[in-house]
Amino acid sequence: MSLKLYYSPGACSFVAHAALELAGATYEPVLLKLHRGEQRSAEFLALNPHGQVPLLVDGPNAISQIVAIVLHLDQRFPEAGLLPPAGLARTRALETLLWMNNTVHPTFTHIFMPQKFTDDAAAQASIKAHATQQYRKVLGEIEHMVAHKATPWLSGQQPGALDAYALTLLRWGGMVGIDPNALPATWALAQEFAALPAVARAIERERLTLNLYRPQS
Amino acid sequence: MSLKLYYSPGACSFVAHAALELAGATYEPVLLKLHRGEQRSAEFLALNPHGQVPLLVDGPNAISQIVAIVLHLDQRFPEAGLLPPAGLARTRALETLLWMNNTVHPTFTHIFMPQKFTDDAAAQASIKAHATQQYRKVLGEIEHMVAHKATPWLSGQQPGALDAYALTLLRWGGMVGIDPNALPATWALAQEFAALPAVARAIERERLTLNLYRPQS
Ligand SMILES: N[C@@H](CCC(=O)N[C@@H](CS)C(=O)NCC(=O)O)C(=O)O
Ligand SMILES: N[C@@H](CCC(=O)N[C@@H](CS)C(=O)NCC(=O)O)C(=O)O
Repeated sequence: MSLKLYYSPGACSFVAHAALELAGATYEPVLLKLHRGEQRSAEFLALNPHGQVPLLVDGPNAISQIVAIVLHLDQRFPEAGLLPPAGLARTRALETLLWMNNTVHPTFTHIFMPQKFTDDAAAQASIKAHATQQYRKVLGEIEHMVAHKATPWLSGQQPGALDAYALTLLRWGGMVGIDPNALPATWALAQEFAALPAVARAIERERLTLNLYRPQS
Repeated sequence: MSLKLYYSPGACSFVAHAALELAGATYEPVLLKLHRGEQRSAEFLALNPHGQVPLLVDGPNAISQIVAIVLHLDQRFPEAGLLPPAGLARTRALETLLWMNNTVHPTFTHIFMPQKFTDDAAAQASIKAHATQQYRKVLGEIEHMVAHKATPWLSGQQPGALDAYALTLLRWGGMVGIDPNALPATWALAQEFAALPAVARAIERERLTLNLYRPQS
């Protein structure tokens, strides 16, 4: 059945985008410009009422939620090794993937879109400052994991979903004043992952610069 | 191998607690009093540095993250049907479970623990008010799903993880002025789920009152 991915360059949809390329899937990539609000078009909201990317369309079914998409692709392309196949290795990878999704990613959302949490401008500034400190801390946790991993990739024996998420979260850090060079193990992993031919195709399609670091003024 | 669950009465750990009971697992329940800060004891932090419940200890391995615990138990007790076994039904259930975990649950955290997002008292009040409105909206989405489900349970053909999460999220709503009777399909589902002998054991151990509704002053 035909696959289609709605993505936005540099957004969290990169995890699904890289997963499709790693799986060698045939799919149609559809770019949505979030800064232009294209995720709130009537056409897209009919597919995903939450108005967010990534959205994977598999035949007649539209599937949202990064981790559900990864598990769906893992079911459809088991040989791709997007996650370890079974046992404790799989549980550990899922534990980290879930934490990235329910904790690290939302911490960045508080920096990038504080207006999702209050209409008050002063409160938004306070949320943003607090989340920036937290974000530094959680990227430090990822750095510790990458530096101490016992497998070639953060996902396990094969490059997969966790490596794609780590790359994305690190890139976002650069936008808010966190220098990737201060997280050397994660930065090396991101560069190595980005250089894989499959991943390079996704990077090129999204025209991503990996190091977005600018010191904060 | 021996199983142990660290839980706190009425917390999100109920999802793991109900799952263990539904699976008919033999395990040791360990109660942590969150309001007394027991999740921040040196002993518990050594098991889970994030200082949160649920934590499942399976032999020598401590596993955090609700959804990772559910997937781990689903792998260990496949006959329990905590999630649909495969295919699109599984993907759809995971999509909803993930949204509950990364969106609905954190919305409640903004109401219950606004101090996690800013130290400023005025900003906390603003976050709380905003999140309460959002929480009403997302419980409305759950109500729509439950009212329109095509299977006996929200999890699928068998009662499972999504039903346990829906019960928990609805109970929390009562604490912040959302009357479960205003969400009749979800309220009926929660009551039916709570009455299952396996689930009743978890409810009794946690001494849970299902309807916590009090009008907000
Ligand atoms: N819970 C969702 C979150 C997805 C998400 O945060 N998407 C962002 C991009 S990183 C988005 O589409 N934002 C646009 C918006 O919210 O308007 C998931 O896990 O997939
Ligand atoms: N991301 C975690 C969240 C767990 C969580 O929110 N646990 C809460 C109880 S509902 C907790 O332990 N809070 C105590 C604290 O944060 O101090 C998961 O999905 O399991």
